[in-house]
Amino acid sequence: MSIELIVDVKNQIKHALEEVEKKQIDNVFFVACGGSSALMYPSKYVVDREAKKMDAHLYSANEFIHRNHAKLGDTSLVILCSHSGTTPETVEAAKFARAKGALTISLTNEPTSPLAQASEVVLKYEWGPTANAFATNYSVLYQLVFGVLKVVENNEKFATIENSLENLQTVFEKAASKYHEAAVEFGKQYKDEKIIYTMASGSNYGVAYSFAICILMEMQWVHSHAIHAGEYFHGPFEIIDEETPFIILLGLDETRYLEERALEFSQRYGKKLIVLDAKDFDFSGIDEEVQGYIAPLVLNYVLRRYAENLAEQRNHPLSTRRYMWKVEY
Amino acid sequence: MSIELIVDVKNQIKHALEEVEKKQIDNVFFVACGGSSALMYPSKYVVDREAKKMDAHLYSANEFIHRNHAKLGDTSLVILCSHSGTTPETVEAAKFARAKGALTISLTNEPTSPLAQASEVVLKYEWGPTANAFATNYSVLYQLVFGVLKVVENNEKFATIENSLENLQTVFEKAASKYHEAAVEFGKQYKDEKIIYTMASGSNYGVAYSFAICILMEMQWVHSHAIHAGEYFHGPFEIIDEETPFIILLGLDETRYLEERALEFSQRYGKKLIVLDAKDFDFSGIDEEVQGYIAPLVLNYVLRRYAENLAEQRNHPLSTRRYMWKVEY
Repeated sequence: MSIELIVDVKNQIKHALEEVEKKQIDNVFFVACGGSSALMYPSKYVVDREAKKMDAHLYSANEFIHRNHAKLGDTSLVILCSHSGTTPETVEAAKFARAKGALTISLTNEPTSPLAQASEVVLKYEWGPTANAFATNYSVLYQLVFGVLKVVENNEKFATIENSLENLQTVFEKAASKYHEAAVEFGKQYKDEKIIYTMASGSNYGVAYSFAICILMEMQWVHSHAIHAGEYFHGPFEIIDEETPFIILLGLDETRYLEERALEFSQRYGKKLIVLDAKDFDFSGIDEEVQGYIAPLVLNYVLRRYAENLAEQRNHPLSTRRYMWKVEY
Repeated sequence: MSIELIVDVKNQIKHALEEVEKKQIDNVFFVACGGSSALMYPSKYVVDREAKKMDAHLYSANEFIHRNHAKLGDTSLVILCSHSGTTPETVEAAKFARAKGALTISLTNEPTSPLAQASEVVLKYEWGPTANAFATNYSVLYQLVFGVLKVVENNEKFATIENSLENLQTVFEKAASKYHEAAVEFGKQYKDEKIIYTMASGSNYGVAYSFAICILMEMQWVHSHAIHAGEYFHGPFEIIDEETPFIILLGLDETRYLEERALEFSQRYGKKLIVLDAKDFDFSGIDEEVQGYIAPLVLNYVLRRYAENLAEQRNHPLSTRRYMWKVEY
């Protein structure tokens, strides 16, 4: 990773935090749609655990607008994201939030897009196979969120997270390499399945959600549902049998017990289990204190390899759509 | 409904509010599992919209404990629910919340249960085919929540909601009667489906969630997922085709536009659509100001008739389980 890139990302974050420092911030709203919303779930987990005063809320963009949360106002920070910066509901949500007096900070790959123009502060992230993890969406968002926690609440993990994220790309590559065979096998063994569930809890739930709705439902037209590992035992577990595939994620955060319990039960009554365990990953360079927060980013990266192998085996490219960008909606 | 029952419920709420009044309350946590958690989603919607100061959070019980929200403390109100009062995670959550100094109020059908014993205040609700809606879980929870909003924030809708809920049973019965034929048809037409999705937004999302995980997955072993109507267009809608059944709920709250948009799209590309529209219901006796909040309760009641018809046609009673209460977990 070039020094220039690191400096550029850090400068962007620094500029955003200068704007945050000018205001009193009582709460933060995470607002986006689909995959961009899913990437914010770990950040809500972080604020829930770390912030002693600031409250965190997460809504899909149109729900955010129409729900019209009574505590959205001039002491609110609204963090938005849209990859293309053109998602109409998210652009509208930025305008809505500004009209309420909130500070709006948007993440996007397109810094001249409508979302960028509608927002007070824009953070451009990198994307694609050659992008360094430090400059991609999850990492930029974490730097912003831990930065806000520092500025607003004197939380001390900002430097730790920044230093750790500089080593994220290596962790990504080692984890993907370790799970390479498993990812290939997943594509071969599960290519004919009509439904595949995903499951996780805590900071990892958003990754399970993203894989279910964006990869399986959207990109592969495979039925799915992201089951919360704690809710599993209060309804969903009745669906498991030897024929029903479950992707079960185990992270390193404080809710890991929920995921382990769900796995243990599933191993007794299910047979088609795909397990990704962050304990298998080499977290060298990631401070132990934040490994629980970083695990979902690594799980998400590794799962992308699973998606690619599934797509290849099914001869159904991840870019195939029947409605999205093709018809009116 | 007997005067005695009304008086008893109101006295229970009055006692609970006296305890709330003794404390400073900055936030409220809704904590339960499965169907008992789903019944709290509309209440979170209410607090989000109505409370100018108090924040609302909703977590499955074990997630609540292990996530360990930093703002849970002696100015927190934790509202819990377990029908039997024996759900281990929820009992544990009550103890955890008390140890943090929070005020705990539990709803249960069993006022001598472990959850009742672990909580400072207990609200017993009625249940079953002969119970009057005013005394059932959704209604008791709304009375508590609007009462808390009154006591803590001088919100003025408490009397309106109480008076409206006294007429809820009649609304339930008229709505079920109006949708009787449709519920019977649902059972007949969809008895052989392997997957049925549900969809809603705002205050109605919890009803869609409950039907998906408790009725379809748990009680019928039918694959399902509750799709948020706003998220639909950012992934899940790629799954719809002429073969895939969707139960689409339309309520009366501020997010109805999201549900209407999802329905309109689904009507273009899907064929197996089961639509329940609260606009079809007779809300006489329910104040117009709170009809949006009451709609999910009515949708939930009508959907129970759909569940019963489906169970009958599939010859799979709603009480059938293979794991729940039968094996260790």
